[in-house]
Order: sequence, then structure tokens, then C-alpha cells
Amino acid sequence: MDLDYAVIGGGVAGAYTAWRLQQDRGADNAIGLFEYSDRIGGRLYSVTVPGVPSIKAELGGMRYIPDSHKMVADLVDHLKLPTRNFPMGAPDPVGANCNLFYLRGRHMRLHELSDPAKVPYNLAWSERGLGPTNLQVQVMNNIYPGFADLSLCDQMKIKVFGQPMWKYGFWDLMFRVLSNEGYQFMKDAGGYDANVANANAVTQLPATEYGDETQYLTLCDGYQKLPLTLAERFTALPGGKLAGGDRIAMNRCLKEIRIWEGDYRYELVFQPTVTENASTRMAAAEPIVVRAKHLVLALPRRSIELIKSEIFEAEPLKSSLGSVLIQSAFKLFMAYQQPWWRSLGLVAGRSVTDLPVRQIFYFGTEGEQSGGDPTMNSLLMASYNDISTVPFWKGLEIGERYMGPNNPCIPQSPDEASPVTPYDATRLMVEAANTQIAAVHALPSIPMPYAAVYHTWNEDPYGGGWHEWKAGYRLDKIMWQMLKPLPDQDIHIVGEAYSYGQGWVEGSLTTAEQMLQTHMGLTPPIWLDPNYQLMPAPDGGCGEVEGCLQSFDTAEVLAGATPSCFGRKQIS
Amino acid sequence: MDLDYAVIGGGVAGAYTAWRLQQDRGADNAIGLFEYSDRIGGRLYSVTVPGVPSIKAELGGMRYIPDSHKMVADLVDHLKLPTRNFPMGAPDPVGANCNLFYLRGRHMRLHELSDPAKVPYNLAWSERGLGPTNLQVQVMNNIYPGFADLSLCDQMKIKVFGQPMWKYGFWDLMFRVLSNEGYQFMKDAGGYDANVANANAVTQLPATEYGDETQYLTLCDGYQKLPLTLAERFTALPGGKLAGGDRIAMNRCLKEIRIWEGDYRYELVFQPTVTENASTRMAAAEPIVVRAKHLVLALPRRSIELIKSEIFEAEPLKSSLGSVLIQSAFKLFMAYQQPWWRSLGLVAGRSVTDLPVRQIFYFGTEGEQSGGDPTMNSLLMASYNDISTVPFWKGLEIGERYMGPNNPCIPQSPDEASPVTPYDATRLMVEAANTQIAAVHALPSIPMPYAAVYHTWNEDPYGGGWHEWKAGYRLDKIMWQMLKPLPDQDIHIVGEAYSYGQGWVEGSLTTAEQMLQTHMGLTPPIWLDPNYQLMPAPDGGCGEVEGCLQSFDTAEVLAGATPSCFGRKQIS
Repeated sequence: MDLDYAVIGGGVAGAYTAWRLQQDRGADNAIGLFEYSDRIGGRLYSVTVPGVPSIKAELGGMRYIPDSHKMVADLVDHLKLPTRNFPMGAPDPVGANCNLFYLRGRHMRLHELSDPAKVPYNLAWSERGLGPTNLQVQVMNNIYPGFADLSLCDQMKIKVFGQPMWKYGFWDLMFRVLSNEGYQFMKDAGGYDANVANANAVTQLPATEYGDETQYLTLCDGYQKLPLTLAERFTALPGGKLAGGDRIAMNRCLKEIRIWEGDYRYELVFQPTVTENASTRMAAAEPIVVRAKHLVLALPRRSIELIKSEIFEAEPLKSSLGSVLIQSAFKLFMAYQQPWWRSLGLVAGRSVTDLPVRQIFYFGTEGEQSGGDPTMNSLLMASYNDISTVPFWKGLEIGERYMGPNNPCIPQSPDEASPVTPYDATRLMVEAANTQIAAVHALPSIPMPYAAVYHTWNEDPYGGGWHEWKAGYRLDKIMWQMLKPLPDQDIHIVGEAYSYGQGWVEGSLTTAEQMLQTHMGLTPPIWLDPNYQLMPAPDGGCGEVEGCLQSFDTAEVLAGATPSCFGRKQIS
Repeated sequence: MDLDYAVIGGGVAGAYTAWRLQQDRGADNAIGLFEYSDRIGGRLYSVTVPGVPSIKAELGGMRYIPDSHKMVADLVDHLKLPTRNFPMGAPDPVGANCNLFYLRGRHMRLHELSDPAKVPYNLAWSERGLGPTNLQVQVMNNIYPGFADLSLCDQMKIKVFGQPMWKYGFWDLMFRVLSNEGYQFMKDAGGYDANVANANAVTQLPATEYGDETQYLTLCDGYQKLPLTLAERFTALPGGKLAGGDRIAMNRCLKEIRIWEGDYRYELVFQPTVTENASTRMAAAEPIVVRAKHLVLALPRRSIELIKSEIFEAEPLKSSLGSVLIQSAFKLFMAYQQPWWRSLGLVAGRSVTDLPVRQIFYFGTEGEQSGGDPTMNSLLMASYNDISTVPFWKGLEIGERYMGPNNPCIPQSPDEASPVTPYDATRLMVEAANTQIAAVHALPSIPMPYAAVYHTWNEDPYGGGWHEWKAGYRLDKIMWQMLKPLPDQDIHIVGEAYSYGQGWVEGSLTTAEQMLQTHMGLTPPIWLDPNYQLMPAPDGGCGEVEGCLQSFDTAEVLAGATPSCFGRKQIS
């Protein structure tokens, strides 16, 4: 089998790349997409829990920010995928203010974070009265006012405490401007370990997008519908050297890349795999060899490291591959016969705790959804946690699957709707989570869920849930190098891992589209806002900032930095 | 080059194995030892800091417990290596009671941990008044009184909360018997993240050996002297098929194991390496192939995973290799012109904090050491930390090396004594550490050190500082399987990683000696206590415990478990 373009990885970056290539040059070329498992989607993974078919359990990515993720928004519009809001709290004017924080054994509502007497952290005087997001905005303005408004090109020039910002880890930098208790509070109350991890300060410092006032959208049919639709479109395009049905090869694990001379110089050795109950392993079968002219690796760091090839062992690619941290993450969804949390004024958004569940997200009832069955069956993301708490849940993965109480409000029996699969949670997992959730809500007990599904993003071949640039790396250059890491090879690396939108689908799509334009000569798609810049320019003559503050907008700094001094509403 | 025995890994397990084999059968056999770097020692790494030549900076393992590490103790005696005490506090009657705890922004002395009003954790009533070690003893006796006194064989049979103990992660189990604040206190005040990690509860639960009353010994010439001496003895033994000087090959990285038929069936492909300034990389040289009849991998998990071979990809070895967690660790030593900490009553042992330095160990002055130069130059282990705090320090690794103030009390200039090497700390690292150390001691400022060295145990080929059995694995069986993991192959895995003494040299030596006796027919060494059991029997007919408590020693439980109820002295 000889291909003009081989795209490896059936996640959103790979499906997008294959679709765009097929559109642009499918008539004259053979374009193939290869996927390790039996599922198109990668880290977009939407599961239907029995009884709540209208609310998808997003085991992976779950939302986007239409104001800043313009490429996702434009693509979703183009593909006509229905969307809905992903609210972070009750309807206005309450918003997220009633959502709970349970930290160090104390209960608070969000609006109580501004009362230092209630916050159980030994904060410095300058840190009191601020929630985690406001605290981050304050320290950013302490370090370099308006840093978030600079271009990446300018940000890379800023020097603080005697060295460039990009050489700092975020934690190392916070250590200079926050008390240890302030940092701990930012970590615990922020909900994500990853947001305060010691990754590159240039990308970490301005990242306050998880605040409770950000507007998110989600896909009604689940975020996985995006790569699934792209893959369908890819195979549905007419004509060309390869029939639609032959363009995607599932259950193919790329084991080795061999490079030869000649036209089809990439010899790709695929090991067939078997997927059973959503778990994939190598098959007892002979490897399949495919040759290609161009190779696109739409893969995260760990997946690339699992491929044998000399090209990954030589510098500078070797150290560039190591320039990102792989962050583990865990999600657990539980379905209840009623949204018991609403009695506490909790409607949407999240509650945050330092218990291992870390973040609890409230979703709606089936009956409220447009076209939903008329029941009160409700979905809760019982846990969304990362890095330090993932091992707690990994220890509960082995053992019997959870069998909840029978739910009379499900048309079919749960057994029919949901065969036992690896994403069904264990009894021990559900018991631990339910105990913690009761504690977070200060309730002596809560009902047991009737169903539970989970996924842990740390296993091969994914490695983790998302990536973060390491301190000390020129991320502005590496993200461009990855699009074509070897000058004399037609090999391209795209996806979230080495993007400027790490942790988001926007990072996947923008690297893929930029690579297609820069290295394969595609013209921008008509559906994409022509003014949208896919990736920040690596060094676009952005002036002479060099650490000298050139403007200082007092009003803006006051508005962003010191809400406590004039009673501004908490934004997190 | 054809060998009868190829031993891979110049750490203490490999050096010991080679020495014992040479002693036993060196006359008739060719025995070779291969090391990746230019240094015999592995994770024993003793460095001399200028000005304090009589106190070694132990960048790796630093001590042993003669009461329980009988094989280390007997071997050290046999090799006549001079030892000294490694005290955990001031001389009696003060002991460790004056050592500091700085947690959540509050200062305490050890003896103040029994005053719940001073401990800044929202502990449950049952948890108050206990230091971290006593708290662990109490919860152990809550779960299964006397668990630590059972044999491993019995421990594997104990069921708690409906399933065998070995299926639990320690954190998951603690979650059932401790408040989250109690667990957090145990983690923060215990000093080691690893001690409360979610590793196998069977080995984690009884582990209270890091308490401040344990008696430790250290080697006067550094712990690395043990593997160095073993390697010297190995090459010094007379006669045989291989001359002494040809028995050790340094700077050889084992890249691949190929298996053939015939006498010398293991074809070992070594890539030569280069070491410069204590940093090792692959050399631009052709691989060297060596054949061997028997193969001993005296390597940790990550080193094994870096070797290409089909044998590691097949079950059950593949999952057994994955049965241990690799734990990262970091050590930083700083040398001062005087032991400024003594003014606070701090003489020896450690202070503990939740700041990223985590543990500070006080060592003595050069002038106090037997044969030491007459100066007050003093060594401090400024930081000993693991897992969650290692990234803080990794972010400070890049940049200029630290140049301390000139120290007139060093006979030679520091430049002569200490060329810049990768274990010299950076300026940013030293500044961050010194700031934290001042905070822990509640001093506005402290002198800057005149020298600083560090090492981080997380990079290839080591992977981490030590290993811990994962929850859900039959460690009692796997530790034996590893000694000869494939029934029809003469391949053996020894070392700390898959031992019953993880984190200690005792684990390395006992697996090596047990393998030599069980699979190579060696008789026990005459210097070893004949009653000492190297490894716990996998299933030695140890009765019918099965979760039924068969004795309950009230006095012992009271003594161990509830010190606060009759004012027993804190042991940690």
C-alpha cells in the first residue's frame, strides 16, 4: 500500500488534517488516516450514560471558549454541529456565587472567598480577600502589568528578576511574589493542579481562562462529534486515488518509521491491534508495512516516543520533543435519579475541594434537555482532577464494576444500554467519590448513583490528558519547528501537545491548519475568519520591549489587580 | 568478547553480584560488569564539597538501619568500612525534640506537635496530639492491630473493608480511617511524599522507619565506598579466564538484548557513551556486541525499559515490570563557614516544612570530625524532597552555576577543589533554598553558602530515586519471579526496584544474594548471619490468618497507638 500522505492519529488534529488534504488534493493523491484504537476521537471521548442520553459524559475535552477559540467556533459553525451553553453557575444574577468550596475541612460559598476570616489559609496581608483567579491577576500585574495583553513575541522578551520570563517555571516565579500559603490556596481553590504547575511562566502566568465568568460552549451531541464528523467528511469526499472506505485504517499501531531514498521514502510499520470493551492491545498478527511520501504525526508526545525511529533520537528534535510536560488527568461521571444538589442552590458550574475529587461539575436533568426523555435523571461530573490526585483514583481501578440501585426511570434496562466496559467505574471508586461528595456538600449522606463511568488520561498511548510547555524552552520557536522538524524530511508534527492552545482543541486545529498552509501550500479555508491568526509569529519584529514597561494603564491594573480594595466582584 | 556471566549495572547490586560470582566461580568463568556512566555507584553517589572533606555529601542513599538491615551491616563489617552514627537529633535527653516544623506558615518544635492548639491542621478529634509517625501507628492499629509484626506471608492474607490489604493503595486506605486534613498533616509533617503515596498498603502501612528514634549508621567515607569497594574486590581477585582489568567495562549502555540458540545465547548490543562533567551521553561510535551465557540485569525499572528486547514485551514479565512506581527525588547540599543553625538548638537530624525544600538535615563541622581540618566549615542538606516538589527544583536547573562568597577557611581555592560540574547547584536554586531555609528558621536572613551541590533523581537511565510496589500486585510473588522471570532463560533481575527493601541498599543486596543462592547455586557467604532471612517466603505455609485477628496485645496497642492518652513522648 503506497500513500502520498499518511496521517497518523485519529484524534481531532489527524481527522482535520486528512479531511483538509482530501478536499484540497484528494483527486490526485492517496491520503490515509491511521488510528491505534477502534475509535475516532483521541482525547475527545463522549459517552452516553443510561437514562441521560441527552447529556453526554465528556470523558475527555468538553468545552471551548467561542471568544478566543475562533477556529473551533468557525469549524463547528461550518459543519453545522448544534451547540449549547456550558454555564459556570446559576442564571444571573446569582451566577457562580453560590457554588461551594470545601478546603481544609471548611465550607464556603464562592462569594465568601473575599472574607479573609473564612478562608483557612495563612495568607499574607496582600493576598487576603482574593479568590484564586483574582490572586493570579494581582501577581501578574505585580510582576509585569498588562502581561496578558502583550503578543507572545513581546512576552518572550520580558525580563523579570534578572532573566527572561520564559526561563521561569510558574511555581518558581510565584515563589517570589506569593507566600507559600498563597500559592497553596491558588492551587487548592483553583481546582486544577496543572494551572499552577511549574510549567513555562510565559504561558502559565496570563492563563486565567478557567475563571467562573468565562463563557463556554459545548456540542449537544458531544465533543467527539467534531472529529467523528471530520472523519466522515474525509471518507465521504468523492473521487481520487483511494475509495472512501479505504482511507481510514483503524486498529493500527505505528511501531516504527524507516526512511529510505526515493519517492515513497517513509516505510511505516504498523502492528495491528485488537479493541475489546474499549481497551486496546497488540494483536497476534504480522506487522503491516505502508509506504508514504509525506508523513503527518497528529500525535501527543508519549505516542511519538512509543514509535521507534532514529529521527527522534537526534538533536534538536530529541530535546524539542522533551520540551513539554505530560499532565495526567481523571474524570468520573455519576448519574442520579434526581439532581439532589439543587436543594443547596447548585445548578451549574463547579464546586471545588482539596479532597481527591477536586472538582465537581453540575449538569442538568434529562427532562430539561430539548428532546429529552421526561425524567429527572441527572448527570454529575463527580470528579475532575489532575496530577497529584490521579494516583488516588488509579489505586481504585482494579476490582468489581459498580452496580447501582435499579433505576425505574430508564426505558431500557441499564444492562442493555451499558455493557460492562473499561470506562465503567468500580464499586470502590464510586463509594470513595460519593463519600467525598457528601462531605463537600455537608450532607450526612447522599443517594448512591445508579450508574458511573470514568476515564483516566495517563496510560499509553496518550500519556496524559494535556501538555504544558516546560520552563526554559523557546516555545515560540519550537511550536513552529514541530510543523516540520527536519529540514530535509516531509515529516510534520501537529496537535495539542506542541501548540499555543495546549489543553484545548483550538491548539490541535491551529497547528494542523498552520502546517497545511505553511508546508503543504493549502489556502486558508473559506469558513475561517480571514483575520484570525492561527499561531503567534515566532519573531515578527514586535518592537523593543526588552523588559522596559512602555505603558502602564492605572485603571486597567486597578480593575484587574486589586478588586478587594474597592469591593469588586470575585471572578473566581 | 564472550562471557559466562554478564552483569549489567554498576550500582551496588551489580558490583555485589559480580564480586560474589568471581569469588565463587571466577577461576573457570569469564565474568563481566558493564556500567552506563563512568562511575561505579548507581544511586549511591558520595561527593566531597570543598572545605568539608570529612563529611560526604550523599547525593543518593545515605544511611542504613543496622537493627534491620543486617546484610548491609554484615557486609560493611566484613569489608572493614569505617562507620559512624547518623543521629536524628541533639544528644540525649533532647534528641529530636527541638527540631523544627514549619507548616502552613507556623513554627513548631517537634515536642509541640502534641499540642493540638499549635498544629495548623483541622484534625479530627481522634487525630489530635499525634505526630505523623504516631498517627500512622494509630491508624495501623485501627485497621489491623499488630500488622507490622506479621510476616509478609500473613500480611498478604489480611482482609480489610472486604478485600485483601494488598489490593489497597495506602492513600485509598487512609481515606477510610483518617480525615483529609489528617492525611495532609501526615504527608506534610512526615517529610516524604513517598511515605504516604498511593503505593501498596501492605508495604506502606507498617513503614514507620523514618521516625526520629530510629538508629542509623553511615559510612565515614561515603556510602558509595561500598559499591566502589565491591568493584575493587571483584577486579582484584586473582586468576581466572579474564584478567582483573578486563572485568569491568565502563561507559557502555546496553541498548538491545538479542536471544539466539546455543551456548552463548545472549547477544548484548552496547552503545559506547561519553561522560563529561558527570553527565553521560551516547558516543558517536559503533555499537559493541558481547555474547554471554548468563545475564544479570542489576537495574531499576526505567533502565530496563530503555533496553530493546522482545522479552520485556511479553506477559507476565511486561506487567511485572510495571508493578512498581518510580518515585522522583531531589537533594541539595550547601556548605557554610559556620553552623549558624546551632544557635537555635539544632545539632543533628532534620527540620521539616511544607515549603519546597521539605526536609533540612543538619550535619556537623569539619573541625569536629575525626582527622578533620580545624575549621568551622559546616554542611547542611538544604533540601531533601520527593515527588510533588521535585518540579519546583527542576525549573531552576538551567542557568549560571552558583558562585558563593570566598571562604578563607579552605586550604585550596574552591576552583581547584571543585570544577564546575552538573551537580553544582545554580544560583537560582541556592537563592530559592536559602530564602526558604531562613523562613523555616524564622530568621530575617542567613549567610549565603560558600558552595552548593545537588542531584535530581528522575532522569534517564535511573528514572527515579527509588521504587514502591503498586496497589493490586502480589509483591510477595513478583519479587521472587524477578530473580528469574523467564523459566527457560538464564536472565535475572536484581536490585532495589523489585525488592522487599525498596528505597534501601538492603533491598539491592538481598535480591542479589537470594538470586545467587537460588538460581546459581552459591552457598551463603560466611560473613552473613546464617539466621538472616534474605527475602520473605512467597507462601511458606504461614497459617490461616485470612483476616481473623488471632491475638490482640492490649499493652502493645496502647503503647503504639494512643500516646496522647497518657502523654507518651512523640516519636516523630
